[in-house]
Amino acid sequence: MTSLTTVIHPPVDRRRRLAEALTRARLDALAVAHLPNVRYLTGFTGSNALLLLAGQRALLYTDPRYTLQARAECDIPVRIVAQGPLWTEVVRETQRRAVQTLGLEATHLSHAQWQAVAQSLGRLVRLKDGSGLVERLRLIKDTQEVEAIRRSVALAAKAYSKAIRKARTGMKELELAAELDHQMRLLGAEGPAFETIVAAGERSALPHARPTTRPIGANQILLVDMGASLNGYASDMTRVVHTGPPSAEAKRLYDAVSAAQAAAVAAVAPGVTASHVDAAARNVLRKHGLARYFTHSTGHGLGLEIHEGPRLGRLVDTILDPGMMLTIEPGAYIKGFGGVRIEDTVLVTPTGVEVLTPTSKEFLEIPS
Amino acid sequence: MTSLTTVIHPPVDRRRRLAEALTRARLDALAVAHLPNVRYLTGFTGSNALLLLAGQRALLYTDPRYTLQARAECDIPVRIVAQGPLWTEVVRETQRRAVQTLGLEATHLSHAQWQAVAQSLGRLVRLKDGSGLVERLRLIKDTQEVEAIRRSVALAAKAYSKAIRKARTGMKELELAAELDHQMRLLGAEGPAFETIVAAGERSALPHARPTTRPIGANQILLVDMGASLNGYASDMTRVVHTGPPSAEAKRLYDAVSAAQAAAVAAVAPGVTASHVDAAARNVLRKHGLARYFTHSTGHGLGLEIHEGPRLGRLVDTILDPGMMLTIEPGAYIKGFGGVRIEDTVLVTPTGVEVLTPTSKEFLEIPS
Repeated sequence: MTSLTTVIHPPVDRRRRLAEALTRARLDALAVAHLPNVRYLTGFTGSNALLLLAGQRALLYTDPRYTLQARAECDIPVRIVAQGPLWTEVVRETQRRAVQTLGLEATHLSHAQWQAVAQSLGRLVRLKDGSGLVERLRLIKDTQEVEAIRRSVALAAKAYSKAIRKARTGMKELELAAELDHQMRLLGAEGPAFETIVAAGERSALPHARPTTRPIGANQILLVDMGASLNGYASDMTRVVHTGPPSAEAKRLYDAVSAAQAAAVAAVAPGVTASHVDAAARNVLRKHGLARYFTHSTGHGLGLEIHEGPRLGRLVDTILDPGMMLTIEPGAYIKGFGGVRIEDTVLVTPTGVEVLTPTSKEFLEIPS
Repeated sequence: MTSLTTVIHPPVDRRRRLAEALTRARLDALAVAHLPNVRYLTGFTGSNALLLLAGQRALLYTDPRYTLQARAECDIPVRIVAQGPLWTEVVRETQRRAVQTLGLEATHLSHAQWQAVAQSLGRLVRLKDGSGLVERLRLIKDTQEVEAIRRSVALAAKAYSKAIRKARTGMKELELAAELDHQMRLLGAEGPAFETIVAAGERSALPHARPTTRPIGANQILLVDMGASLNGYASDMTRVVHTGPPSAEAKRLYDAVSAAQAAAVAAVAPGVTASHVDAAARNVLRKHGLARYFTHSTGHGLGLEIHEGPRLGRLVDTILDPGMMLTIEPGAYIKGFGGVRIEDTVLVTPTGVEVLTPTSKEFLEIPS
């Protein structure tokens, strides 16, 4: 990390904005358990931590495995809990500071954990659900995050282009998936952001197909859905190629989905609703008689997690804002024939949209 | 699946044993949300499901993505929920059957989810914590599970032996980790069972080191901790080699850990406590003056998850029983010098123990 980025350490600003949200939600303090939220607010990348925020003050709790790492990564005081659960110490600190209303993440905390905290806090502290407070901040990516996702997208695209060159008839779906993952790792990714999908022929009609040991056949649709995790940030892309020259039917399907994807990308702009982008894709597919074969939503936010808000679904009225990072991924799936999905990662800009995924969207042929 | 294994479909027997546990726990029904538990009881491998068990009856709820897959994998009725959350349907079914006491997994369900279910059930149904009921059955692996873990262990060992041949000075930790993961994939694994650890030199003293872009140096300890996920089942092994001839100090460290590991393996038998196995490793390290460098427990159960019960820790009085599958992995970590951990996956047998990991435990040299 250069001295410049140390000076404008982004977690400081993120915690400042969260402190304002806590005041608005009438919370004296918030205990953050969800690890992507902890990472966002502190920079800590370990696998065991609790973060206690009270006004402008913040304290990170972790165990002795992370003593050195936590102090190197975080710009806030770190408490190492040698014995027993981290929650015990958080409860003690809450009592020491005479917190009256404590927020917990009800969507991330198990019911058993919530009950245990409630019991040890007793009646003097009121627990409130603070779910979504951090996630709402995370909707809008700051400069450092945009750059991190940009790098993750570029890495996945490079891995795709290296691996797809090796794809050919007879190769197993799992072999191509392994090659894609291997290329991501060699390029410096921690790993895939999710289980890489490689689906050939009829199996491309299953939107969540897991790669199998079946060989890729001749004259088949071949769908690849992949993303990298790089410095914690996800990317997500889908491309479809064909082994040998595509049939007229495959081409029609491809062109329709391609037009729908382009329409959805073009619909992205600050001030429009998520459902507006979804409708743009759906309308194009409807004109091609394919609306009922498009069985999922048009996309989702991504960042420290592969699925973040907003979902680009039919009934989602979230307004898009500059700094949101989205996937645009309409598809059409015809049982017994095959499916096509085309997906880019895009950034909502102050004036419209920037497509980050550099990969060609032509319907390419690979050796049959 | 052959017709033979269809006839003795193991989930039937597992559900029968669970039904007995429900009766003992005075539960009319149990809603299972934790996916490894759902897989154990039904065979379903999808990423979205709820399982409702009431007496001998069982119902699986999932979404339309899994219509074909769920019906192929499960031997119980499947309900496809096209719209809305699966819980809504489970609540309805609970009311239809006039269930009075429903168990939920408080350790796996979020507090928000528990509250939502409680609210929609109203006061006629009493919710009880059913956490651990399925996990307790899963402690003892049945024949099919033992075979699945055996294959996972063999696969990881084979991938290790292929990859370690390529390890040499100058190779980055991350490159070796990528090679290990790639070999597991090529051999048919879904992927690694956890993030593969490759740690060279001083970094081997960090028990949870993540591989870095640092090159493996000459005359260094090189620690590899890895496992495969194969048909859902985990394996786990750790081996330590040395680049070039090890120093006397490295050898002493290695030999002490090796003796501790052998002692712990020898201590495994039905009827002994988990803490007895842990003590066997710890006593050997104490004799070598290394007890305080052994900072974790001696092992853990594994199966559909990489960490299952029982933990082989100092204060754990769980009695070992035939069919338990355990890791035995003592280590010693000397800051600024390096660490050694040696780990096998072992099965508790009716008469003692069987070590499944076939890999040599000699302190091998690799090209420096």
